[in-house]
Amino acid sequence: MADAKERKILVAVDDGLESLYALSWSLHNLVSQTSNDTIILIYAKPPRTVNTSPDGYLFSPDMMASVDKCRNDLASSIIEKAKKICREQGDKEVKVEVIIESGDPRDVICQAADKIHADVLVMGSHGYGLIKRAFLGSVSNHCAQNVKCPVLIVKKPKSSSSATGTK
Amino acid sequence: MADAKERKILVAVDDGLESLYALSWSLHNLVSQTSNDTIILIYAKPPRTVNTSPDGYLFSPDMMASVDKCRNDLASSIIEKAKKICREQGDKEVKVEVIIESGDPRDVICQAADKIHADVLVMGSHGYGLIKRAFLGSVSNHCAQNVKCPVLIVKKPKSSSSATGTK
Repeated sequence: MADAKERKILVAVDDGLESLYALSWSLHNLVSQTSNDTIILIYAKPPRTVNTSPDGYLFSPDMMASVDKCRNDLASSIIEKAKKICREQGDKEVKVEVIIESGDPRDVICQAADKIHADVLVMGSHGYGLIKRAFLGSVSNHCAQNVKCPVLIVKKPKSSSSATGTK
Repeated sequence: MADAKERKILVAVDDGLESLYALSWSLHNLVSQTSNDTIILIYAKPPRTVNTSPDGYLFSPDMMASVDKCRNDLASSIIEKAKKICREQGDKEVKVEVIIESGDPRDVICQAADKIHADVLVMGSHGYGLIKRAFLGSVSNHCAQNVKCPVLIVKKPKSSSSATGTK
């Protein structure tokens, strides 16, 4: 790789182990000792589409605040886990930035990749859970078809129980 | 990247510029100066499914030999072009190996990736031509879903007319 190349490596993270494995794989296989890379972690918070209960009554402001707090806590927890992987697993210290947006992960990720002019988008292949995926379609499929930059789709080996990305 | 890591980078090439751009991108962004990488070029020759003419008469052996020669010449020409890119564009000298198999590219690529235990499969997103893709479905889509190793799908920027892969 050319020296001092500055690259933006956008890594989509979610609450699944596979996205953390993809992050780990990138640190070991894509981040270069001779490049000046920035890992940009992106997390899409599910949109808050419902503020009424199924029977039509509004949830109380307290309840909505509590739901929002849970969503924010989950986002923080995932990002912290991802940052820890960056600190501990990279072969060199790598700059880390974070993007958290609310919305459909397909839109959030594709828009961010184009907006920041990512050099490569990294994601797990089965993010966002089996049930959500059935409704949403595969997020990685969608992004592979729609973002302009190269897309690296990483599967977590079945035998691997930890997010190490090492071989 | 850890020193002296040995990786097999499987790159699917075809007669489209996009696959050569994907190869070029890999040389600049994935092959590391500190790793001991081998680029394995894979080309799937379209299977010879028809040996009769539409009206039922057998093509002559001469004609079939001529068709086979064309297919082999095309394969050689594509592989030579890809090898040239490896020689000229890599930031370091990289080992190159070649796999040529007849068959549906989806099967050929997926089987090879698993058989050689590729560390990563690289491919263009629109390989194998618009018309063939309409019949076959997207080869890259299929491979992304079916191979075990990470898959890097590289799109050729619309503004880029050459297979350089540089930014």
